[in-house]
Amino acid sequence: MSIEKVQIFDTTLRDGEQVPGCKLNTAQKLVIAERLDALGVDVIEAGFPISSPGDFHSVNEIAKIVKNATVCGLTRAVKKDIEVAAEALKHAKKPRIHTGIGTSDSHILHKFKSNRDEILERAVKAVAYAKTFVDDVEFYAEDAGRTDNEFLALICSEVIKAGATVLNIPDTTGYCLPEQYGAKIKYLRDHVTDIDKAILSCHCHNDLGLATANSISGVINGARQIECTINGIGERAGNTSLEEVVMIMRQHPDLNLDTNINSKLLYSTSRLVSESMGMPVQPNKAIVGSNAFAHSSGIHQDGVIKNRETYEIIDPEEVGVIESAIVLTARSGRAALAYRAKRIGYELTKLELDKVYEEFLNFADKKKEVVDEDIHQIMEIHKIEHKAIA
Amino acid sequence: MSIEKVQIFDTTLRDGEQVPGCKLNTAQKLVIAERLDALGVDVIEAGFPISSPGDFHSVNEIAKIVKNATVCGLTRAVKKDIEVAAEALKHAKKPRIHTGIGTSDSHILHKFKSNRDEILERAVKAVAYAKTFVDDVEFYAEDAGRTDNEFLALICSEVIKAGATVLNIPDTTGYCLPEQYGAKIKYLRDHVTDIDKAILSCHCHNDLGLATANSISGVINGARQIECTINGIGERAGNTSLEEVVMIMRQHPDLNLDTNINSKLLYSTSRLVSESMGMPVQPNKAIVGSNAFAHSSGIHQDGVIKNRETYEIIDPEEVGVIESAIVLTARSGRAALAYRAKRIGYELTKLELDKVYEEFLNFADKKKEVVDEDIHQIMEIHKIEHKAIA
Repeated sequence: MSIEKVQIFDTTLRDGEQVPGCKLNTAQKLVIAERLDALGVDVIEAGFPISSPGDFHSVNEIAKIVKNATVCGLTRAVKKDIEVAAEALKHAKKPRIHTGIGTSDSHILHKFKSNRDEILERAVKAVAYAKTFVDDVEFYAEDAGRTDNEFLALICSEVIKAGATVLNIPDTTGYCLPEQYGAKIKYLRDHVTDIDKAILSCHCHNDLGLATANSISGVINGARQIECTINGIGERAGNTSLEEVVMIMRQHPDLNLDTNINSKLLYSTSRLVSESMGMPVQPNKAIVGSNAFAHSSGIHQDGVIKNRETYEIIDPEEVGVIESAIVLTARSGRAALAYRAKRIGYELTKLELDKVYEEFLNFADKKKEVVDEDIHQIMEIHKIEHKAIA
Repeated sequence: MSIEKVQIFDTTLRDGEQVPGCKLNTAQKLVIAERLDALGVDVIEAGFPISSPGDFHSVNEIAKIVKNATVCGLTRAVKKDIEVAAEALKHAKKPRIHTGIGTSDSHILHKFKSNRDEILERAVKAVAYAKTFVDDVEFYAEDAGRTDNEFLALICSEVIKAGATVLNIPDTTGYCLPEQYGAKIKYLRDHVTDIDKAILSCHCHNDLGLATANSISGVINGARQIECTINGIGERAGNTSLEEVVMIMRQHPDLNLDTNINSKLLYSTSRLVSESMGMPVQPNKAIVGSNAFAHSSGIHQDGVIKNRETYEIIDPEEVGVIESAIVLTARSGRAALAYRAKRIGYELTKLELDKVYEEFLNFADKKKEVVDEDIHQIMEIHKIEHKAIA
């Protein structure tokens, strides 16, 4: 079976930037857009042009500098929105308009005070209108996760007829379980008329911690685009993490799915976004957290020193991290102490190691982490000779 | 179908505390253990008694104060480890010894330089020996995620015969996809002799961002215990997040699974652990992140103001968060501005709102977040009268 490509649609600069307190200025957005382009994302959603003059300006400037990726602007299913987005995207090499409307009964009744027929009509009109400006039109069925499948298939079939190239199926509230989300994508693959004329896209939120799993379930069931953000940022609990879905596909070749991402740029891109937005990445964040490749327990450290693959499945270099750290704490064993001691110039015999290990545990019980300075002190106490490091 | 209970095995104080730089002293551990007991966890893994004198002391003290939960201590499949754990747990009302060994070929060859027969023998001996001290013995098959299913079923059958009450099936490297992990649990339910005499337990790591999804897949396929930590802390990318799996089961009643957790204590417990360990929770963390219930984009804010269920599926009060915040940024719409303005004493007409909204966007394009002070300033510019708040 040949490997199929999954498009990576990065929405760090749109859905990601909706995070309270994370507003970026145009200059910052341009730096991030260039980096995303270098990282190899297929689509950059650059903003929501009608939402503010600043956003319009950013989309406009991003469209000018992006070399490879498609540049996309978000709109509601509203004429003015679409016109403004088209204007903002006019310099893009590959422009895409992303338009859509809420399709769940909850959204139709409470948000639009409308009915299914009217919503269907507005959706088709919006896509057809966007199509007068650009070839590439993505349609989103907001709250698709809670939308009745039959109605969802109908609206998808109709927007394809109107020219939609991509169908975005968002689990807007982050409510779906992976099996449910995958089943929804499969239902659409099986029931939407002319489905081969468009790509199904996963757009998952992380309110229950399932965005990554839902997106993977989506592509296993036939979706071929994932909408995601660097570090999983986004409103509330955020979006799908780009770095996680990319590395899952790479670590599981049996899925026969891959992306165009240069994974060696993941770590530095994560840092760039985190610093630009002032949005910390927790140390235990998968793939890009500062601890993602750090080991502190004795059993694990011993295993890693013997053979990296015992505990690590990803080579840190694959994602741009230079080396996995062995951190010394009260949970570290003799092997870790010997390893770190050797790196700073002490070759210990088994007897010496037994002796200094007791001392090491005294240090470690009092401190969170035993650092090189402490090791030197421990060696001095036990008169272990220091050797120059080759 | 009646609702079945899933046991929550909290390992914040053992696997969670293995995080570099997060060592807790005994006093801090006692505070957290008491809180976990109040939260309603079924098992508290309090430490790894043989690993250091400090750890032994902590397990011993925790065993004395915990009222409801089982208190558990970790060991390797080593006689001395088991004796020390039994000693540390001697005051526990409900003690459990958690012993085990690596069962994947990678662990057997690289870590133990051994073979399957020897590993099987050591596993059985360890369980039988632990059983001489306590009734409740949990066996872990380390790196079960990469262990051959047939060998795993054999070792599980044999340790049940030796008295194991719980079988921990860890995806130690965080490598499995949800379908794979669920299939492994199902295989064991179907192939382990006398499986009804023990509970299968999920212990998943988050290296690919799938710990939560894997644990849920595990319980859907017949496991009845989840090993997890507050905030998902733990080595590398951490463990399964307690708050996520608990809320998934509660939000999806169709699963017919529930826990004993008092969800209203989740948020405060998360804060306690984060502050004690000096381990930040990223704002976009599911359930307990500071932004988990915050809305900033106009479309979402408008929806939430009209009807909370449009965008939020969890009532923030359910997890102990007082109210979902409406944060004002350049992405906020008129409804959000009117809502916040009203809360600080301005009742705006439609015309007034149009006028001040333009001004608001100027403010918002320059600042990350528009705060109450800015709103007062905007109102002053447009001479909107302030009314006393009822």
